[in-house]
Amino acid sequence: MSRTVYVNGDFLPEENAKISVFDRGFLFADGVYEVTTVIGGKLLDFDGHMARLKRSLGELDMNQPAEIDTLLEIHKRLIEENSLVNGLIYLQVTRGAADRDFAFPPEDTPMSVVLFTQTSDPTKSKLSETGARVIVVPDNRWARRDIKTVQLLYPSLAKMAAKKAGADDAWMEEDGYITEGSSNNAWIVTEDGTLVTRDLSHSILHGITRKAVLKCAELLQMKVEERPFTKEEAANAREAFITSASSFVTPVIEIDGNSIGEGKPGPTAGKLREIYMEEALKTAV
Amino acid sequence: MSRTVYVNGDFLPEENAKISVFDRGFLFADGVYEVTTVIGGKLLDFDGHMARLKRSLGELDMNQPAEIDTLLEIHKRLIEENSLVNGLIYLQVTRGAADRDFAFPPEDTPMSVVLFTQTSDPTKSKLSETGARVIVVPDNRWARRDIKTVQLLYPSLAKMAAKKAGADDAWMEEDGYITEGSSNNAWIVTEDGTLVTRDLSHSILHGITRKAVLKCAELLQMKVEERPFTKEEAANAREAFITSASSFVTPVIEIDGNSIGEGKPGPTAGKLREIYMEEALKTAV
Repeated sequence: MSRTVYVNGDFLPEENAKISVFDRGFLFADGVYEVTTVIGGKLLDFDGHMARLKRSLGELDMNQPAEIDTLLEIHKRLIEENSLVNGLIYLQVTRGAADRDFAFPPEDTPMSVVLFTQTSDPTKSKLSETGARVIVVPDNRWARRDIKTVQLLYPSLAKMAAKKAGADDAWMEEDGYITEGSSNNAWIVTEDGTLVTRDLSHSILHGITRKAVLKCAELLQMKVEERPFTKEEAANAREAFITSASSFVTPVIEIDGNSIGEGKPGPTAGKLREIYMEEALKTAV
Repeated sequence: MSRTVYVNGDFLPEENAKISVFDRGFLFADGVYEVTTVIGGKLLDFDGHMARLKRSLGELDMNQPAEIDTLLEIHKRLIEENSLVNGLIYLQVTRGAADRDFAFPPEDTPMSVVLFTQTSDPTKSKLSETGARVIVVPDNRWARRDIKTVQLLYPSLAKMAAKKAGADDAWMEEDGYITEGSSNNAWIVTEDGTLVTRDLSHSILHGITRKAVLKCAELLQMKVEERPFTKEEAANAREAFITSASSFVTPVIEIDGNSIGEGKPGPTAGKLREIYMEEALKTAV
Protein backbone atom coordinates (compact mmCIF):
# COMPACT_ATOMS: atom_id res chain seq x y z
CA MET A 1 0.00 0.00 0.00
CA SER A 2 1.19 3.48 -0.84
CA ARG A 3 2.33 5.77 1.93
CA THR A 4 0.70 9.14 2.47
CA VAL A 5 3.27 11.91 2.18
CA TYR A 6 2.95 15.59 3.07
CA VAL A 7 4.07 18.13 0.46
CA ASN A 8 3.42 21.84 0.87
CA GLY A 9 -0.05 21.64 2.34
CA ASP A 10 -1.22 18.44 0.67
CA PHE A 11 -1.40 14.86 1.88
CA LEU A 12 -0.62 12.76 -1.19
CA PRO A 13 0.02 9.14 -2.19
CA GLU A 14 3.80 8.75 -2.37
CA GLU A 15 3.76 8.29 -6.17
CA ASN A 16 2.36 11.82 -6.45
CA ALA A 17 4.62 13.36 -3.81
CA LYS A 18 6.68 15.68 -5.98
CA ILE A 19 8.41 19.02 -5.79
CA SER A 20 9.47 21.46 -8.47
CA VAL A 21 12.79 20.84 -10.20
CA PHE A 22 13.43 24.50 -9.35
CA ASP A 23 13.26 23.76 -5.62
CA ARG A 24 16.45 25.04 -4.00
CA GLY A 25 16.62 21.82 -2.03
CA PHE A 26 17.17 20.01 -5.33
CA LEU A 27 19.40 22.59 -7.06
CA PHE A 28 21.50 23.95 -4.15
CA ALA A 29 21.00 21.58 -1.20
CA ASP A 30 19.51 24.70 0.37
CA GLY A 31 17.44 22.85 2.93
CA VAL A 32 17.47 21.41 6.42
CA TYR A 33 15.84 18.36 7.95
CA GLU A 34 14.91 16.48 11.11
CA VAL A 35 14.14 12.83 11.73
CA THR A 36 11.88 12.05 14.68
CA THR A 37 11.48 8.50 15.94
CA VAL A 38 8.01 7.06 16.50
CA ILE A 39 7.47 4.33 19.08
CA GLY A 40 4.01 2.96 19.77
CA GLY A 41 2.57 5.72 17.59
CA LYS A 42 4.21 8.46 19.66
CA LEU A 43 6.97 10.94 18.77
CA LEU A 44 10.19 10.83 20.80
CA ASP A 45 11.71 14.15 21.88
CA PHE A 46 9.61 16.16 19.42
CA ASP A 47 10.43 19.43 21.22
CA GLY A 48 14.15 18.75 20.91
CA HIS A 49 13.89 18.16 17.16
CA MET A 50 11.81 21.29 16.65
CA ALA A 51 14.26 23.38 18.69
CA ARG A 52 17.11 22.14 16.51
CA LEU A 53 15.09 22.76 13.33
CA LYS A 54 14.54 26.34 14.48
CA ARG A 55 18.27 26.73 15.09
CA SER A 56 19.21 25.28 11.67
CA LEU A 57 16.77 27.62 9.93
CA GLY A 58 18.08 30.61 11.88
CA GLU A 59 21.72 29.86 11.05
CA LEU A 60 20.81 29.91 7.34
CA ASP A 61 18.59 33.02 7.48
CA MET A 62 15.57 30.89 6.63
CA ASN A 63 12.14 31.59 8.06
CA GLN A 64 10.18 29.15 10.20
CA PRO A 65 7.77 27.71 7.59
CA ALA A 66 4.97 26.97 10.07
CA GLU A 67 4.18 27.09 13.78
CA ILE A 68 5.47 24.14 15.78
CA ASP A 69 1.87 23.20 16.63
CA THR A 70 1.04 22.98 12.93
CA LEU A 71 4.11 20.81 12.31
CA LEU A 72 3.04 18.58 15.21
CA GLU A 73 -0.43 18.20 13.68
CA ILE A 74 1.13 17.15 10.35
CA HIS A 75 3.34 14.61 12.14
CA LYS A 76 0.28 13.24 13.99
CA ARG A 77 -1.82 13.00 10.85
CA LEU A 78 0.93 11.12 9.01
CA ILE A 79 1.20 8.65 11.90
CA GLU A 80 -2.55 8.13 11.70
CA GLU A 81 -2.94 7.94 7.92
CA ASN A 82 -0.02 5.52 7.65
CA SER A 83 -1.02 3.52 10.75
CA LEU A 84 2.57 4.01 11.90
CA VAL A 85 3.40 2.21 15.12
CA ASN A 86 7.21 2.08 15.11
CA GLY A 87 9.39 3.99 12.70
CA LEU A 88 10.26 7.58 12.00
CA ILE A 89 9.03 10.77 10.45
CA TYR A 90 11.35 12.67 8.13
CA LEU A 91 10.82 16.43 7.81
CA GLN A 92 12.59 18.62 5.25
CA VAL A 93 12.31 22.37 4.83
CA THR A 94 13.87 24.22 1.89
CA ARG A 95 14.11 27.84 0.78
CA GLY A 96 11.51 27.04 -1.88
CA ALA A 97 11.33 27.03 -5.67
CA ALA A 98 12.75 29.93 -7.66
CA ASP A 99 14.60 30.51 -10.90
CA ARG A 100 18.13 29.18 -10.39
CA ASP A 101 20.42 31.78 -8.82
CA PHE A 102 23.16 31.50 -6.19
CA ALA A 103 21.61 34.54 -4.51
CA PHE A 104 18.61 33.78 -2.31
CA PRO A 105 15.15 34.26 -3.87
CA PRO A 106 12.88 37.09 -2.66
CA GLU A 107 11.94 36.94 1.04
CA ASP A 108 8.30 36.10 0.25
CA THR A 109 9.15 32.97 -1.79
CA PRO A 110 7.08 30.16 -0.25
CA MET A 111 9.32 27.65 1.51
CA SER A 112 8.91 23.97 0.78
CA VAL A 113 7.88 21.59 3.54
CA VAL A 114 7.95 17.83 2.99
CA LEU A 115 7.28 15.06 5.52
CA PHE A 116 7.14 11.31 5.10
CA THR A 117 7.14 8.22 7.27
CA GLN A 118 9.38 5.17 7.29
CA THR A 119 8.66 1.94 9.12
CA SER A 120 11.38 0.41 11.30
CA ASP A 121 11.75 -0.78 14.84
CA PRO A 122 14.73 0.69 16.65
CA THR A 123 13.69 -1.17 19.81
CA LYS A 124 14.53 -4.41 18.01
CA SER A 125 17.63 -3.34 16.09
CA LYS A 126 19.94 -6.21 15.18
CA LEU A 127 23.04 -4.03 15.54
CA SER A 128 22.11 -3.18 19.10
CA GLU A 129 22.50 -6.89 19.85
CA THR A 130 25.53 -7.75 17.72
CA GLY A 131 27.30 -4.40 17.97
CA ALA A 132 28.48 -2.35 14.99
CA ARG A 133 31.86 -2.45 13.26
CA VAL A 134 33.15 0.90 12.03
CA ILE A 135 35.94 2.08 9.77
CA VAL A 136 37.59 5.49 10.04
CA VAL A 137 37.55 7.86 7.05
CA PRO A 138 38.70 11.48 6.70
CA ASP A 139 35.98 14.02 7.53
CA ASN A 140 35.56 15.71 4.14
CA ARG A 141 32.30 17.51 4.91
CA TRP A 142 31.70 21.25 4.89
CA ALA A 143 32.64 23.23 7.98
CA ARG A 144 29.15 23.71 9.49
CA ARG A 145 28.06 20.24 10.54
CA ASP A 146 26.12 21.79 13.41
CA ILE A 147 23.51 22.89 10.87
CA LYS A 148 21.44 19.87 9.84
CA THR A 149 21.46 20.48 6.07
CA VAL A 150 20.73 18.01 3.30
CA GLN A 151 24.34 18.22 2.08
CA LEU A 152 24.67 14.53 2.88
CA LEU A 153 26.61 13.23 -0.09
CA TYR A 154 29.83 12.70 1.86
CA PRO A 155 28.19 10.81 4.75
CA SER A 156 26.49 8.69 2.08
CA LEU A 157 29.87 7.99 0.42
CA ALA A 158 31.35 7.19 3.84
CA LYS A 159 28.54 4.73 4.54
CA MET A 160 29.22 3.04 1.19
CA ALA A 161 32.96 2.89 1.93
CA ALA A 162 32.08 1.13 5.19
CA LYS A 163 29.85 -1.37 3.39
CA LYS A 164 32.59 -2.09 0.84
CA ALA A 165 35.01 -2.72 3.69
CA GLY A 166 32.56 -5.18 5.25
CA ALA A 167 31.80 -2.83 8.13
CA ASP A 168 28.52 -1.28 9.30
CA ASP A 169 29.36 2.38 9.44
CA ALA A 170 32.11 4.98 9.22
CA TRP A 171 33.48 7.32 11.86
CA MET A 172 35.01 10.49 10.49
CA GLU A 173 38.38 11.90 11.53
CA GLU A 174 39.72 15.45 11.28
CA ASP A 175 43.02 16.85 12.53
CA GLY A 176 43.73 13.53 14.23
CA TYR A 177 40.46 13.31 16.16
CA ILE A 178 37.16 11.56 15.57
CA THR A 179 34.38 14.03 14.81
CA GLU A 180 31.33 11.73 14.62
CA GLY A 181 29.72 8.87 12.74
CA SER A 182 28.15 9.15 9.28
CA SER A 183 24.74 9.85 10.84
CA ASN A 184 25.31 9.59 14.58
CA ASN A 185 27.45 10.87 17.44
CA ALA A 186 30.43 8.79 18.59
CA TRP A 187 31.19 7.82 22.20
CA ILE A 188 33.76 5.78 24.06
CA VAL A 189 34.01 4.44 27.60
CA THR A 190 37.53 4.66 28.99
CA GLU A 191 39.24 2.04 31.14
CA ASP A 192 38.14 3.87 34.32
CA GLY A 193 34.52 3.96 33.13
CA THR A 194 34.39 7.59 32.02
CA LEU A 195 32.06 8.37 29.11
CA VAL A 196 33.74 10.48 26.43
CA THR A 197 32.02 12.22 23.52
CA ARG A 198 33.17 15.16 21.48
CA ASP A 199 32.24 18.62 22.76
CA LEU A 200 29.74 20.69 20.77
CA SER A 201 31.09 23.01 18.08
CA HIS A 202 30.61 23.63 14.36
CA SER A 203 32.46 20.34 13.77
CA ILE A 204 29.64 17.98 14.74
CA LEU A 205 25.89 17.67 14.73
CA HIS A 206 24.30 18.68 18.02
CA GLY A 207 22.59 15.34 18.47
CA ILE A 208 19.22 15.29 20.22
CA THR A 209 19.92 11.75 21.40
CA ARG A 210 23.47 12.75 22.40
CA LYS A 211 21.93 15.37 24.69
CA ALA A 212 19.37 12.94 26.09
CA VAL A 213 22.05 10.31 26.76
CA LEU A 214 24.16 12.89 28.60
CA LYS A 215 21.15 13.38 30.89
CA CYS A 216 20.82 9.61 31.34
CA ALA A 217 24.51 9.43 32.28
CA GLU A 218 23.87 12.09 34.91
CA LEU A 219 20.91 10.10 36.25
CA LEU A 220 23.19 7.08 36.49
CA GLN A 221 25.92 9.21 38.11
CA MET A 222 28.42 8.27 35.44
CA LYS A 223 31.52 10.40 34.92
CA VAL A 224 31.41 12.23 31.57
CA GLU A 225 34.01 14.16 29.58
CA GLU A 226 32.97 16.18 26.54
CA ARG A 227 36.19 16.34 24.49
CA PRO A 228 37.66 15.04 21.25
CA PHE A 229 39.23 11.57 21.20
CA THR A 230 41.47 9.78 18.70
CA LYS A 231 40.86 6.50 16.91
CA GLU A 232 43.71 4.98 18.93
CA GLU A 233 41.93 5.95 22.13
CA ALA A 234 38.74 4.40 20.73
CA ALA A 235 40.57 1.18 19.79
CA ASN A 236 41.89 0.94 23.34
CA ALA A 237 38.61 1.89 25.04
CA ARG A 238 36.65 -0.46 27.24
CA GLU A 239 33.52 0.17 25.17
CA ALA A 240 32.29 2.38 22.36
CA PHE A 241 28.86 3.26 21.02
CA ILE A 242 26.93 5.61 18.81
CA THR A 243 23.80 7.63 19.48
CA SER A 244 21.17 8.87 17.04
CA ALA A 245 17.42 9.41 16.97
CA SER A 246 16.87 6.30 14.89
CA SER A 247 19.43 3.96 16.48
CA PHE A 248 19.14 5.17 20.12
CA VAL A 249 22.32 3.81 21.75
CA THR A 250 24.09 1.19 19.65
CA PRO A 251 27.33 -0.51 20.74
CA VAL A 252 30.42 -0.34 18.53
CA ILE A 253 32.62 -3.42 18.86
CA GLU A 254 35.31 -2.88 16.25
CA ILE A 255 37.16 0.09 14.74
CA ASP A 256 39.32 -0.28 11.62
CA GLY A 257 39.52 -4.03 12.28
CA ASN A 258 40.56 -3.69 15.95
CA SER A 259 38.27 -5.16 18.56
CA ILE A 260 37.11 -2.70 21.20
CA GLY A 261 37.18 -4.05 24.76
CA GLU A 262 36.05 -7.66 24.64
CA GLY A 263 34.80 -7.26 21.06
CA LYS A 264 31.18 -7.55 22.09
CA PRO A 265 28.44 -5.14 23.24
CA GLY A 266 29.34 -3.82 26.67
CA PRO A 267 27.26 -3.18 29.78
CA THR A 268 27.51 0.64 29.73
CA ALA A 269 26.00 0.95 26.26
CA GLY A 270 23.34 -1.59 27.22
CA LYS A 271 22.41 0.26 30.38
CA LEU A 272 22.31 3.66 28.63
CA ARG A 273 20.16 2.22 25.84
CA GLU A 274 17.69 0.88 28.38
CA ILE A 275 17.48 4.10 30.40
CA TYR A 276 17.35 6.26 27.27
CA MET A 277 14.33 4.32 25.98
CA GLU A 278 12.58 4.56 29.33
CA GLU A 279 13.19 8.30 29.61
CA ALA A 280 12.34 9.07 25.97
CA LEU A 281 9.00 7.29 26.23
CA LYS A 282 8.08 9.37 29.29
CA THR A 283 7.98 12.58 27.21
CA ALA A 284 6.73 11.04 23.93
CA VAL A 285 3.77 12.88 22.37
CA MET B 1 5.16 32.16 -21.60
CA SER B 2 6.12 29.02 -19.76
CA ARG B 3 9.46 27.38 -20.46
CA THR B 4 9.67 23.82 -21.63
CA VAL B 5 11.70 21.74 -19.20
CA TYR B 6 13.08 18.21 -19.60
CA VAL B 7 12.43 15.75 -16.76
CA ASN B 8 13.23 12.05 -17.10
CA GLY B 9 12.15 11.57 -20.69
CA ASP B 10 9.40 14.18 -20.83
CA PHE B 11 9.33 17.72 -22.17
CA LEU B 12 7.00 19.59 -19.82
CA PRO B 13 5.76 23.11 -19.11
CA GLU B 14 7.87 24.39 -16.20
CA GLU B 15 4.88 24.40 -13.80
CA ASN B 16 4.66 20.63 -14.27
CA ALA B 17 8.40 19.99 -14.12
CA LYS B 18 8.61 18.01 -10.91
CA ILE B 19 10.63 15.24 -9.35
CA SER B 20 9.86 12.84 -6.53
CA VAL B 21 10.47 14.07 -2.98
CA PHE B 22 12.39 10.78 -2.65
CA ASP B 23 14.90 11.87 -5.28
CA ARG B 24 18.40 11.61 -3.81
CA GLY B 25 19.18 14.99 -5.31
CA PHE B 26 16.60 16.47 -2.96
CA LEU B 27 17.31 14.34 0.14
CA PHE B 28 21.11 13.88 -0.03
CA ALA B 29 22.44 16.39 -2.60
CA ASP B 30 23.46 13.18 -4.38
CA GLY B 31 23.66 14.75 -7.82
CA VAL B 32 25.95 16.54 -10.24
CA TYR B 33 25.34 19.25 -12.80
CA GLU B 34 26.68 21.18 -15.78
CA VAL B 35 25.77 24.58 -17.17
CA THR B 36 26.41 25.11 -20.87
CA THR B 37 26.24 28.58 -22.40
CA VAL B 38 24.18 29.17 -25.53
CA ILE B 39 25.13 31.97 -27.93
CA GLY B 40 23.18 32.51 -31.12
CA GLY B 41 21.32 29.25 -30.47
CA LYS B 42 24.56 27.25 -30.27
CA LEU B 43 26.19 25.44 -27.35
CA LEU B 44 29.65 26.56 -26.27
CA ASP B 45 32.21 23.86 -25.44
CA PHE B 46 29.58 21.12 -25.20
CA ASP B 47 32.23 18.39 -25.37
CA GLY B 48 34.11 19.92 -22.45
CA HIS B 49 30.99 20.00 -20.29
CA MET B 50 30.10 16.42 -21.16
CA ALA B 51 33.64 15.24 -20.42
CA ARG B 52 33.45 16.88 -16.99
CA LEU B 53 29.99 15.42 -16.37
CA LYS B 54 31.38 11.97 -17.11
CA ARG B 55 34.23 12.57 -14.69
CA SER B 56 31.89 13.84 -11.91
CA LEU B 57 29.65 10.77 -12.34
CA GLY B 58 32.65 8.44 -12.29
CA GLU B 59 34.08 9.96 -9.10
CA LEU B 60 30.75 9.28 -7.37
CA ASP B 61 30.25 5.75 -8.76
CA MET B 62 27.24 6.96 -10.72
CA ASN B 63 26.36 5.60 -14.14
CA GLN B 64 26.19 7.71 -17.28
CA PRO B 65 22.39 8.24 -17.55
CA ALA B 66 22.34 8.53 -21.36
CA GLU B 67 24.67 8.64 -24.36
CA ILE B 68 26.24 12.02 -25.03
CA ASP B 69 24.43 12.16 -28.38
CA THR B 70 21.10 11.74 -26.61
CA LEU B 71 21.99 14.50 -24.16
CA LEU B 72 22.97 16.72 -27.09
CA GLU B 73 19.59 16.07 -28.74
CA ILE B 74 17.80 17.08 -25.54
CA HIS B 75 19.88 20.28 -25.34
CA LYS B 76 19.06 21.05 -28.98
CA ARG B 77 15.35 20.42 -28.55
CA LEU B 78 15.21 22.69 -25.49
CA ILE B 79 16.93 25.45 -27.46
CA GLU B 80 14.35 25.02 -30.19
CA GLU B 81 11.23 24.68 -28.03
CA ASN B 82 12.23 27.69 -25.96
CA SER B 83 13.45 29.73 -28.95
CA LEU B 84 16.64 30.26 -26.95
CA VAL B 85 19.12 32.57 -28.65
CA ASN B 86 21.43 33.62 -25.81
CA GLY B 87 21.43 32.04 -22.38
CA LEU B 88 22.31 28.72 -20.85
CA ILE B 89 21.18 25.17 -20.39
CA TYR B 90 21.34 23.65 -16.94
CA LEU B 91 21.67 19.86 -16.70
CA GLN B 92 21.37 17.89 -13.46
CA VAL B 93 21.81 14.17 -12.97
CA THR B 94 21.02 12.43 -9.68
CA ARG B 95 21.22 8.89 -8.36
CA GLY B 96 17.40 8.75 -8.68
CA ALA B 97 14.47 8.25 -6.32
CA ALA B 98 14.56 5.58 -3.64
CA ASP B 99 13.42 5.10 -0.08
CA ARG B 100 15.65 7.31 2.09
CA ASP B 101 18.87 5.53 3.07
CA PHE B 102 22.46 6.78 3.39
CA ALA B 103 23.50 3.66 1.49
CA PHE B 104 23.11 3.91 -2.28
CA PRO B 105 19.94 2.44 -3.81
CA PRO B 106 20.14 -0.72 -5.99
CA GLU B 107 22.30 -0.36 -9.13
CA ASP B 108 19.25 -0.54 -11.42
CA THR B 109 17.48 2.44 -9.82
CA PRO B 110 16.67 4.82 -12.69
CA MET B 111 18.75 7.97 -12.44
CA SER B 112 17.07 11.36 -12.68
CA VAL B 113 17.92 13.70 -15.53
CA VAL B 114 16.64 17.27 -15.55
CA LEU B 115 17.44 20.05 -18.01
CA PHE B 116 16.13 23.59 -18.27
CA THR B 117 17.02 26.81 -20.03
CA GLN B 118 17.67 30.28 -18.71
CA THR B 119 17.80 33.43 -20.83
CA SER B 120 20.71 35.80 -20.38
CA ASP B 121 23.31 37.45 -22.54
CA PRO B 122 26.85 36.96 -21.32
CA THR B 123 28.14 38.87 -24.36
CA LYS B 124 26.51 42.00 -22.91
CA SER B 125 27.23 41.52 -19.21
CA LYS B 126 27.28 44.75 -17.22
CA LEU B 127 29.98 43.43 -14.88
CA SER B 128 32.29 42.79 -17.81
CA GLU B 129 32.20 46.55 -18.41
CA THR B 130 32.24 47.86 -14.84
CA GLY B 131 34.34 45.10 -13.30
CA ALA B 132 33.33 43.09 -10.25
CA ARG B 133 34.09 43.80 -6.60
CA VAL B 134 34.78 40.76 -4.46
CA ILE B 135 35.09 40.04 -0.77
CA VAL B 136 37.14 37.19 0.69
CA VAL B 137 35.45 34.57 2.87
CA PRO B 138 36.78 31.31 4.38
CA ASP B 139 36.34 28.30 2.10
CA ASN B 140 33.96 26.20 4.17
CA ARG B 141 32.97 23.74 1.43
CA TRP B 142 33.50 19.99 1.42
CA ALA B 143 36.88 18.66 0.33
CA ARG B 144 35.98 17.51 -3.23
CA ARG B 145 35.25 20.72 -5.12
CA ASP B 146 36.59 19.08 -8.28
CA ILE B 147 33.34 17.08 -8.44
CA LYS B 148 30.57 19.39 -9.65
CA THR B 149 27.91 18.37 -7.12
CA VAL B 150 24.78 20.26 -6.15
CA GLN B 151 26.13 20.78 -2.63
CA LEU B 152 26.03 24.51 -3.30
CA LEU B 153 24.68 25.90 -0.07
CA TYR B 154 27.99 27.43 1.02
CA PRO B 155 28.68 29.17 -2.32
CA SER B 156 25.12 30.51 -2.08
CA LEU B 157 25.79 31.80 1.45
CA ALA B 158 29.07 33.33 0.24
CA LYS B 159 27.25 35.09 -2.60
CA MET B 160 24.76 36.51 -0.09
CA ALA B 161 27.57 37.64 2.21
CA ALA B 162 29.04 39.50 -0.78
CA LYS B 163 25.72 41.16 -1.56
CA LYS B 164 25.31 42.22 2.08
CA ALA B 165 28.78 43.76 1.97
CA GLY B 166 27.83 45.71 -1.16
CA ALA B 167 30.12 43.57 -3.35
CA ASP B 168 29.35 41.43 -6.39
CA ASP B 169 30.86 38.11 -5.44
CA ALA B 170 33.04 36.25 -2.95
CA TRP B 171 36.43 34.63 -3.37
CA MET B 172 37.11 31.79 -0.98
CA GLU B 173 40.28 31.38 1.05
CA GLU B 174 41.80 28.26 2.61
CA ASP B 175 45.11 27.86 4.43
CA GLY B 176 46.00 31.42 3.48
CA TYR B 177 45.41 31.04 -0.26
CA ILE B 178 42.49 31.87 -2.54
CA THR B 179 40.82 28.72 -3.85
CA GLU B 180 38.26 30.16 -6.28
CA GLY B 181 35.14 32.33 -6.58
CA SER B 182 31.65 31.29 -5.48
CA SER B 183 30.89 29.95 -8.98
CA ASN B 184 33.99 30.76 -11.03
CA ASN B 185 37.76 30.37 -11.13
CA ALA B 186 39.95 33.23 -9.88
CA TRP B 187 42.88 34.75 -11.76
CA ILE B 188 45.37 37.57 -11.27
CA VAL B 189 47.85 39.30 -13.56
CA THR B 190 51.11 40.09 -11.79
CA GLU B 191 53.15 43.28 -12.21
CA ASP B 192 55.29 41.61 -14.88
CA GLY B 193 52.20 40.51 -16.82
CA THR B 194 52.17 36.84 -15.77
CA LEU B 195 48.73 35.20 -15.54
CA VAL B 196 48.28 33.28 -12.30
CA THR B 197 45.46 30.87 -11.51
CA ARG B 198 45.35 28.08 -8.99
CA ASP B 199 46.57 24.67 -10.12
CA LEU B 200 44.05 21.84 -10.46
CA SER B 201 43.45 19.62 -7.43
CA HIS B 202 40.51 18.50 -5.30
CA SER B 203 40.40 22.07 -3.91
CA ILE B 204 38.82 23.75 -6.92
CA LEU B 205 36.43 23.12 -9.77
CA HIS B 206 38.16 22.13 -12.97
CA GLY B 207 36.64 24.99 -14.94
CA ILE B 208 35.85 24.41 -18.60
CA THR B 209 36.31 28.12 -19.26
CA ARG B 210 39.49 28.14 -17.14
CA LYS B 211 40.89 25.49 -19.48
CA ALA B 212 39.78 27.37 -22.60
CA VAL B 213 41.28 30.63 -21.31
CA LEU B 214 44.59 28.86 -20.63
CA LYS B 215 44.58 27.92 -24.32
CA CYS B 216 43.80 31.52 -25.30
CA ALA B 217 46.73 32.70 -23.16
CA GLU B 218 48.93 30.26 -25.05
CA LEU B 219 47.65 31.61 -28.38
CA LEU B 220 48.50 35.12 -27.16
CA GLN B 221 51.92 33.89 -25.93
CA MET B 222 51.22 35.12 -22.42
CA LYS B 223 53.25 33.77 -19.51
CA VAL B 224 51.11 31.60 -17.21
CA GLU B 225 51.69 30.15 -13.73
CA GLU B 226 49.25 27.62 -12.31
CA ARG B 227 49.75 28.02 -8.55
CA PRO B 228 47.90 29.27 -5.47
CA PHE B 229 48.01 32.99 -4.66
CA THR B 230 47.07 34.97 -1.55
CA LYS B 231 44.55 37.77 -1.22
CA GLU B 232 47.44 40.17 -0.58
CA GLU B 233 48.99 39.16 -3.89
CA ALA B 234 45.61 39.72 -5.54
CA ALA B 235 45.23 43.15 -3.93
CA ASN B 236 48.67 44.12 -5.28
CA ALA B 237 48.14 42.59 -8.72
CA ARG B 238 48.00 44.62 -11.91
CA GLU B 239 44.69 43.02 -12.84
CA ALA B 240 42.36 40.29 -11.67
CA PHE B 241 39.48 38.45 -13.27
CA ILE B 242 37.18 35.46 -13.00
CA THR B 243 36.26 32.83 -15.56
CA SER B 244 33.11 30.72 -15.81
CA ALA B 245 30.89 29.26 -18.51
CA SER B 246 28.22 31.89 -17.93
CA SER B 247 30.42 34.96 -17.31
CA PHE B 248 33.27 34.14 -19.76
CA VAL B 249 36.12 36.38 -18.57
CA THR B 250 34.99 39.12 -16.18
CA PRO B 251 37.39 41.67 -14.66
CA VAL B 252 37.68 42.01 -10.89
CA ILE B 253 38.54 45.55 -9.79
CA GLU B 254 38.36 45.39 -6.01
CA ILE B 255 39.09 42.82 -3.31
CA ASP B 256 37.98 43.35 0.29
CA GLY B 257 37.69 47.08 -0.41
CA ASN B 258 41.17 47.42 -1.97
CA SER B 259 41.36 48.57 -5.57
CA ILE B 260 43.22 46.21 -7.87
CA GLY B 261 45.59 47.94 -10.30
CA GLU B 262 43.93 51.13 -11.46
CA GLY B 263 40.58 50.03 -10.02
CA LYS B 264 39.04 49.55 -13.44
CA PRO B 265 38.82 46.71 -15.98
CA GLY B 266 42.27 46.03 -17.40
CA PRO B 267 43.48 45.24 -20.91
CA THR B 268 44.53 41.62 -20.25
CA ALA B 269 41.07 40.57 -19.10
CA GLY B 270 39.54 42.49 -21.99
CA LYS B 271 41.78 40.82 -24.54
CA LEU B 272 41.23 37.33 -23.09
CA ARG B 273 37.47 37.88 -23.05
CA GLU B 274 37.53 38.84 -26.72
CA ILE B 275 39.71 35.92 -27.82
CA TYR B 276 37.80 33.46 -25.63
CA MET B 277 34.51 34.43 -27.26
CA GLU B 278 36.00 34.17 -30.74
CA GLU B 279 37.51 30.75 -30.04
CA ALA B 280 34.45 29.38 -28.23
CA LEU B 281 32.15 30.31 -31.09
CA LYS B 282 34.38 28.42 -33.54
CA THR B 283 33.55 25.08 -31.91
CA ALA B 284 29.95 25.87 -30.87
CA VAL B 285 27.43 23.20 -31.89
